[in-house]
Amino acid sequence: MNAIDKFASLLTLTREPFPASTKSAIAGSRPDLRVPVRDVALTNGEVVSLYDTSGPYTDAAVEIDVRRGLPDVRAAWIAERGDTESYEGRLRAALDDGAKNEDREAERIAQLRAEAAALQRTPRRARSGANVTQMHYARRGIVTPEMEYVALRENGKREWMAEYLANEERTRRVAGNPMGASIPRIITPEFVRDEVARGRAIIPANINHPEVEPMAIGRNFRVKINANIGNSAVTSSIEEEVEKLVWAIRWGADNVMDLSTGKNIHTTRDWIVRNSPVPIGTVPIYQALEKVGGVAEDLTWPIYRDTLIEQAEQGVDYFTIHAGLRLPFIHLTANRMTGIVSRGGSIMAKWCIAHHQESFLYTHFEDICDIMKAYDVSFSLGDGLRPGSGADANDEAQFAELRTLGELTQVAWKHDVQTMIEGPGHVPMHMIQANMDEQIKTCHEAPFYTLGPLTIDIAPGYDHIASAIGAAMIGWAGTAMLCYVTPKEHLGLPDRDDVKQGIIAYKIAAHAADVAKGHPGARSRDDALSKARFEFRWQDQFNLGLDPDTARDFHDETLPKDASKTAHFCSMCGPKFCSMKITQEVREYAAAKGLAESEALAQGMVGKSAEFKAGGGEIYIPIQPQA
Amino acid sequence: MNAIDKFASLLTLTREPFPASTKSAIAGSRPDLRVPVRDVALTNGEVVSLYDTSGPYTDAAVEIDVRRGLPDVRAAWIAERGDTESYEGRLRAALDDGAKNEDREAERIAQLRAEAAALQRTPRRARSGANVTQMHYARRGIVTPEMEYVALRENGKREWMAEYLANEERTRRVAGNPMGASIPRIITPEFVRDEVARGRAIIPANINHPEVEPMAIGRNFRVKINANIGNSAVTSSIEEEVEKLVWAIRWGADNVMDLSTGKNIHTTRDWIVRNSPVPIGTVPIYQALEKVGGVAEDLTWPIYRDTLIEQAEQGVDYFTIHAGLRLPFIHLTANRMTGIVSRGGSIMAKWCIAHHQESFLYTHFEDICDIMKAYDVSFSLGDGLRPGSGADANDEAQFAELRTLGELTQVAWKHDVQTMIEGPGHVPMHMIQANMDEQIKTCHEAPFYTLGPLTIDIAPGYDHIASAIGAAMIGWAGTAMLCYVTPKEHLGLPDRDDVKQGIIAYKIAAHAADVAKGHPGARSRDDALSKARFEFRWQDQFNLGLDPDTARDFHDETLPKDASKTAHFCSMCGPKFCSMKITQEVREYAAAKGLAESEALAQGMVGKSAEFKAGGGEIYIPIQPQA
Repeated sequence: MNAIDKFASLLTLTREPFPASTKSAIAGSRPDLRVPVRDVALTNGEVVSLYDTSGPYTDAAVEIDVRRGLPDVRAAWIAERGDTESYEGRLRAALDDGAKNEDREAERIAQLRAEAAALQRTPRRARSGANVTQMHYARRGIVTPEMEYVALRENGKREWMAEYLANEERTRRVAGNPMGASIPRIITPEFVRDEVARGRAIIPANINHPEVEPMAIGRNFRVKINANIGNSAVTSSIEEEVEKLVWAIRWGADNVMDLSTGKNIHTTRDWIVRNSPVPIGTVPIYQALEKVGGVAEDLTWPIYRDTLIEQAEQGVDYFTIHAGLRLPFIHLTANRMTGIVSRGGSIMAKWCIAHHQESFLYTHFEDICDIMKAYDVSFSLGDGLRPGSGADANDEAQFAELRTLGELTQVAWKHDVQTMIEGPGHVPMHMIQANMDEQIKTCHEAPFYTLGPLTIDIAPGYDHIASAIGAAMIGWAGTAMLCYVTPKEHLGLPDRDDVKQGIIAYKIAAHAADVAKGHPGARSRDDALSKARFEFRWQDQFNLGLDPDTARDFHDETLPKDASKTAHFCSMCGPKFCSMKITQEVREYAAAKGLAESEALAQGMVGKSAEFKAGGGEIYIPIQPQA
Repeated sequence: MNAIDKFASLLTLTREPFPASTKSAIAGSRPDLRVPVRDVALTNGEVVSLYDTSGPYTDAAVEIDVRRGLPDVRAAWIAERGDTESYEGRLRAALDDGAKNEDREAERIAQLRAEAAALQRTPRRARSGANVTQMHYARRGIVTPEMEYVALRENGKREWMAEYLANEERTRRVAGNPMGASIPRIITPEFVRDEVARGRAIIPANINHPEVEPMAIGRNFRVKINANIGNSAVTSSIEEEVEKLVWAIRWGADNVMDLSTGKNIHTTRDWIVRNSPVPIGTVPIYQALEKVGGVAEDLTWPIYRDTLIEQAEQGVDYFTIHAGLRLPFIHLTANRMTGIVSRGGSIMAKWCIAHHQESFLYTHFEDICDIMKAYDVSFSLGDGLRPGSGADANDEAQFAELRTLGELTQVAWKHDVQTMIEGPGHVPMHMIQANMDEQIKTCHEAPFYTLGPLTIDIAPGYDHIASAIGAAMIGWAGTAMLCYVTPKEHLGLPDRDDVKQGIIAYKIAAHAADVAKGHPGARSRDDALSKARFEFRWQDQFNLGLDPDTARDFHDETLPKDASKTAHFCSMCGPKFCSMKITQEVREYAAAKGLAESEALAQGMVGKSAEFKAGGGEIYIPIQPQA
């Protein structure tokens, strides 16, 4: 079976629609603006509509051909703006895929490139003097289709939530604590524009990635998650990596970073971007390092610059750039427990020390801005000095770099380049809030994008959990996107199941944050599931969960019969001890006897109790014999 | 293979000592007071000593015979106090194991009971008029061996931590935020006594459970975790349940609750208690309900009272008693999303409604105290009205019951009965702190013991993660013990692996809380592991983790060769991109060139940067061409 056939066969599995789910769309102001949602049909006739990151893959009606890539959702919008031009583009080199002429893999790479040829697009760039970023449009007062798309997507279908939202309004008890965020009840396209204009949100959407379904990253929108995929020199293959993208968005990744290193990274990236409905991020220094044979000292600005253009032409939506790791900060890591743990950061530190020079990422930052604004690539300003252990959290090295990222944010904004800020890493719970406070203060509310943080260091094999705790907390505090951590963190390259485990843990963290912030509608899904749970609608309980397959499998391990899907108990407590079953009996009993009677009795006893208290403050416990 | 042989064969696996670990002891003031710890030998010659819940099972030198039970650690201490007497005890009935005479299982039960006969002990109780609780001794100023044991156990061996503790002292940066807890640097036996005397900590230790290795639950001690095991009517067998105990304490359960229902629960409990080095808790109403054929309305105080005595004689260390669920509160649940979700709570609610009477647990509370103090059984005052969904969190039903638990705490304390308070449940992140505040205020700092809480409702199959987030936060806030949640929560009865997954998630939460609170020495294990990680001591990194087997397996999936256990990279990033490897090169480079030079250079550049800022406040980014 050749590579593409293997991918296609994996994809068949991954494309299966979620149980009881159909792809639906929210119509925008123009016929080509249709925001996808997943509608889940419940057994009681209700429909719950969910935010959907999975793209056309879960739409049974769409024919997918990985050799052609996804439909160009945005192509017309980009063309209509009339500020871009197509051009020949940079000449591709064997070195882009890590091959030298004498390389034994040259033949295989040539074949892969031939297979991927149909995926190559003629790149576009801004016309001379133009700036094509969403921030630039926003600052000129323009509401782009991308902004409208984001607004509709964030709101979702509100109709089905009405009962739950009304209940929230009524009680106010469970109203969220936004921790300084300013979340409107309804997100309008104009609100999106204003958030992008002031830099508080970004819409990563390279003009060369017209396949992307636009989404926003910002503290006043739903908390998003990023999944990393990528081969490494030691293991993995292209086919696995592309399938991982489809797998990752199926389970809810809002963004995906392609962190491939080693061979074939250019071709891998073509495959991924052309087949991705979510924004793709990269760390360009990885490819640049490959081009100089892995010798950090040999990196140069021209090689790096060429790599940025190469990837911008392919359609990468955001670049992690460690421009805040300056020469003067490196010695601050000398007494750290775990030194520098960012790959990009350590590469640049090595370069700076070797040359005794300031980082070329810092000195050429405005040159980089010029490239970013010609394609609308967003900055993800990297935290090369993030702590790699609780012992190093919140130290001077980390915060010196963060302050520099704040300075660079203002430079980027001078160019209307969209910018987010990367954050740690390893941070004990009690030191998390300080990270958010410092970031908001020094980076002027540019979206924060953190890796975890891991709250402890002793959980190798379970770092998705150790970090989901920190991620939920920092998400509540205002972080806009959470970079996932898989169970393999610190140990090895995640496989398919690790990716899923990491994503589910982070969907939990992000959702917990949305609920805590009081994001409108976030709790409605919880309410719908809780109601299904209380009413013993097992199928609905499974299907409303983050992972219906696993929930159903777990239930069926001990009660596999179809009849038990409507049973009023599960094997956890058995029929006699099911509290929900008993509660329903209590309610029926109360209804039969008349709740009024029961309440009156209760009121009477409360009154009595109050009497006892008034009589002396001591509680009185009657010892009454009872048959 | 008969039942005991099957258990014995499972046990062989479970008894394997942890890698590179040996059982060691901290010697107390008397020869029979030796506190077990697990010493982990690192490859660099250092030894890390860890708190150990696994009992004699992981001690290769100890011969285990499940037919005889564990050694009586505390027997001499109890006897020496001279305030107890052995007595004939309650007459055992077939009904205790759920059997009626005509029961077809009667024969099997008889055989099980015969097998377990050697495990039956002659019970002890307080001499007439005596009170044998640890709280009673503490209030009379007595430091018991149990209290000294707890103090030594909480401190652990401090020698190996010296480097890490000194570093913490030096930087103060990572010092915890105790959130109102008063944690001394060194725990003395007198401190333990004072905490027990004021009710801020309990030492669950029934005089009929001399096998227990004493431990404390209180906000000024390490956060503890509880694992539930138990058969249910639908599945499971006794053999599995006992093995689950050994499995649970292996992975770190500080306490275990036996929540068995259905057949054979008396015999199961004999097996569990006799073979348990950790305190065992139960919910006696479950057995009482079995005795009345599962009909809640048929429960009576005499049957319940008899069950309490039965279990106290067996050695159960704490009873969950839902005495705060009063008749006047039941109607407060009428408009809830998920009604009453506590099994015990729903049983009592049904009884109250059926009889139109106040709960007999409430009316007989002082009678219950009389039983508790005769055996030193601790109260775990149950939260029968805890919320079963985020929608119901922190509502009047929940808090009305909590206030009642506070009243009952004072009644229990009048009798010197040790008491902790159970808490929720399902609580969104932003509503967690209010639970702790309310509990401290109304329950006078009696230890809080929460189930999770789950921060969201949409994660069936992953509720161990959804709840570990809440557990870590409420642990930091002051909760003394966290009741675990397994991946099977809401879906079915947890199996062996689910139990482990739940425990590891909760060890993470409890440890994250200890680190955040700044518990002395808590972070040392993290530091030791981080140091091993940075120095590429892979074996040490695995062995210092919560689950060495899984960490090693994950690493070996992609790099199985023994040589890679000392390799300076892993498959996650590969050799060229390993940041820790590069950092070490940077450090070597700096050392060779002279760090002073590098620092001087850095200082010079910092000076320059300051100059630029002074010159106008704008940052200046030189655009310098570079080869």
